[in-house]
Amino acid sequence: MKTEALEEIRAVLAIEDKEALAERVSSLQPYDLSEMLREMDHQEQLRLISKLPLSVAAETLEYIEPELQYRILHHLEDEITSPLLKRMSSDTVVDMLLAIHPLQAARLLDLLPEDYRKKIDTLMTFPEDTAGSLATVDYISAREGWTVEQTLNHVRKVGHEAEIISYIYVTNVRGELVGVVSLKEIILAPPGTRLSEIVTEDVIAVTADTEQEEAAELLFRYDFVALPVIDAQKRMIGIIAVDDLIDVIQEVTTEDFQKLGGSQPLTEPYFKTSVWGLFRKRIGWLLFLFVGGAYTANVLSHYNEAMSKIIALSFFVPLLIGTGGNTGSQIVSMLVRALGMGEVQFSDLFRVVRKELMVGVFLGVAMGLVGFLRAYLLGVSYDIGMVVALSALAIVIWASFVAAILPLVLHRLRIDPAVVSGPFISTLVDGTGLIIYFTIAQLLLHV
Amino acid sequence: MKTEALEEIRAVLAIEDKEALAERVSSLQPYDLSEMLREMDHQEQLRLISKLPLSVAAETLEYIEPELQYRILHHLEDEITSPLLKRMSSDTVVDMLLAIHPLQAARLLDLLPEDYRKKIDTLMTFPEDTAGSLATVDYISAREGWTVEQTLNHVRKVGHEAEIISYIYVTNVRGELVGVVSLKEIILAPPGTRLSEIVTEDVIAVTADTEQEEAAELLFRYDFVALPVIDAQKRMIGIIAVDDLIDVIQEVTTEDFQKLGGSQPLTEPYFKTSVWGLFRKRIGWLLFLFVGGAYTANVLSHYNEAMSKIIALSFFVPLLIGTGGNTGSQIVSMLVRALGMGEVQFSDLFRVVRKELMVGVFLGVAMGLVGFLRAYLLGVSYDIGMVVALSALAIVIWASFVAAILPLVLHRLRIDPAVVSGPFISTLVDGTGLIIYFTIAQLLLHV
Repeated sequence: MKTEALEEIRAVLAIEDKEALAERVSSLQPYDLSEMLREMDHQEQLRLISKLPLSVAAETLEYIEPELQYRILHHLEDEITSPLLKRMSSDTVVDMLLAIHPLQAARLLDLLPEDYRKKIDTLMTFPEDTAGSLATVDYISAREGWTVEQTLNHVRKVGHEAEIISYIYVTNVRGELVGVVSLKEIILAPPGTRLSEIVTEDVIAVTADTEQEEAAELLFRYDFVALPVIDAQKRMIGIIAVDDLIDVIQEVTTEDFQKLGGSQPLTEPYFKTSVWGLFRKRIGWLLFLFVGGAYTANVLSHYNEAMSKIIALSFFVPLLIGTGGNTGSQIVSMLVRALGMGEVQFSDLFRVVRKELMVGVFLGVAMGLVGFLRAYLLGVSYDIGMVVALSALAIVIWASFVAAILPLVLHRLRIDPAVVSGPFISTLVDGTGLIIYFTIAQLLLHV
Repeated sequence: MKTEALEEIRAVLAIEDKEALAERVSSLQPYDLSEMLREMDHQEQLRLISKLPLSVAAETLEYIEPELQYRILHHLEDEITSPLLKRMSSDTVVDMLLAIHPLQAARLLDLLPEDYRKKIDTLMTFPEDTAGSLATVDYISAREGWTVEQTLNHVRKVGHEAEIISYIYVTNVRGELVGVVSLKEIILAPPGTRLSEIVTEDVIAVTADTEQEEAAELLFRYDFVALPVIDAQKRMIGIIAVDDLIDVIQEVTTEDFQKLGGSQPLTEPYFKTSVWGLFRKRIGWLLFLFVGGAYTANVLSHYNEAMSKIIALSFFVPLLIGTGGNTGSQIVSMLVRALGMGEVQFSDLFRVVRKELMVGVFLGVAMGLVGFLRAYLLGVSYDIGMVVALSALAIVIWASFVAAILPLVLHRLRIDPAVVSGPFISTLVDGTGLIIYFTIAQLLLHV
């Protein structure tokens, strides 16, 4: 069905009929057009973008990669590129300019009007992962003294350029953000109403250096569709739209999944990452854990004698250390997410540890009983069964303790807690679990 | 700061001054008010909700739990409850009605006008996790023949009740959804324009039985702020707002984290879950994996003789099976997320397996080399070093294979792929890895 639509558009492009094209694309979303754009050859891409209605062309470009954006904009005539650049949302333009060579960026910037160029220049200074880097200047502002009617006329004049018109931001003469009015409030109020009568003065806003996750948390909590970004003087820098924050959060969450699984996060989607790329993202942690975990061999060789005397002790090694790893993995996955969502903080350390230790004791007792039963069924002696049971208890409690502390401490140290992956905690508990196991064995069995 | 605001509101409530209250809360967001509401005693709660401006009261109630919503609404006078219920968004009302006793629900429903009650009744029939269960009927619809001016007047009339006014849904006489116009388009168009001239006819919509994740994917892809929900006859049922979908996706993602860590997902936030509650969510998988993993003891006891002869073989057990588990965990976490995001499907099985096997070979070779080195450093014989190296290679490839297949197959079988947790894949690879290890040992060392 999609290829069909693509072929139709190709046909219309070939005969250069702008009206027929507008008619054909009217039923398509910019996202769908962007998918088709990727399938086209370069000449078709240029023709499509230059023939589309301006706003549709700009929105279509929003959905494609910076490199392709540039390749298209660079090859279009300046009379087409210039208004397109202006109409695209400024956060997208900034992302593109930062992705290409500074000289290429400078050339494109030259096509923009002086004042807009300055705003883009400012946006380009904000570090990645901050609210500032997500901000777009395409918002609508108004003055407190305006009436609802004046404001609506203003919206009609500048609304074409705005990314989001759901909120009108009220600024004073110094450009400071002093209030916000929703378009809904404006439409529902009588035309003569002054904005000052309906404005919300305590605006929920973030500064440009706020972390993007914090901005997302705020916007999601209050169910807004955009969040204003201000500087230290409360001057309006721009707004972040909900869809941009959703994209960011989805990406960060995907990275957290990959980190928790014990690999470095991918920078591209799975199928776009080469075999070599996947290898590089994974080998680091695997090797680190292998080398780190290799001390388990030393531990075991240290208890060489005990094992030679009672070979049955070695039977339970995988089971016991596996259980420790599983317990740790349960806690770590839960805490990493809770930290990411702001549900748990470092100040909760004591509460978390106490809670996890209590849960650990119950889990340990249950696992100890089952462990004893299991050893009995395997036909080993009562003594060894006791050692297995007590070790299961101790290892589960120990794993709970370590897994409860580590993520919170790392978060506190501003290290991403997701580096405490399941594999990490398993490896950590593997060796220490062995020491616990053999110490108990030595105490009880006197080997 | 917050407790201060709370105390002030308490003071104002005590003197029953409606104006002073409106003034005091004007700077607060409904979310903040809901937080304070939770801190108050029941009498204060009733007084606050009954004294707040209607729209603020309704929005504040949106953020609290169904049980508390009911406890407040039930104890207010009917003249207050009735308009409140009407003003709250219908998906919230439905959630509350489904959470309380049917007789209590029936009593509340009686307070609603006939036609609205019917709509609520319909919404209540949609199963959890479907788009229908998230839909609210508080949207604005219009007719194709209307002018922009007529439509704006209509918005002014009914906009108070609407949850989202960013889109106007165009329906025909049979109630079928035939188009959508954004409020932005309406405001920017000349007043005399007919909706038919600016309407987008191919509306992106979901049916009521669509899975909520699918609805979210669609809305996020197209950057909408609401998505229409229709029935099989294309009749409009309601809309889903972006913030409701964000909440749902955040919740589902949290569950995925917990499942991937190897426990059942919590139904309440971490700190609200009791020690006993945490125990119950975790013990199931821990025991299952313990009992399942216990066959490692059988495997090892089977190779009893080989280990007695060459005790050094046992030194590398934790390291080798740990590496297998780590490899599997990396892949599983990545694929579960990719499946959840719709990036990977079952039809990609062959591509995924091929890719993972190739990565696995490279990883295995690297780990094998390091494993050999490690054995050498521990001072074991060249033969045993070779066994360790080859086993590392084989186990990594085997783990890659299993971890690539399982999540995709489960997804295909409509089982949540997140049940293949890190602990699950580790346990699975533990035993099979041991068999690989000792088989290689027997072949090379003839023990």
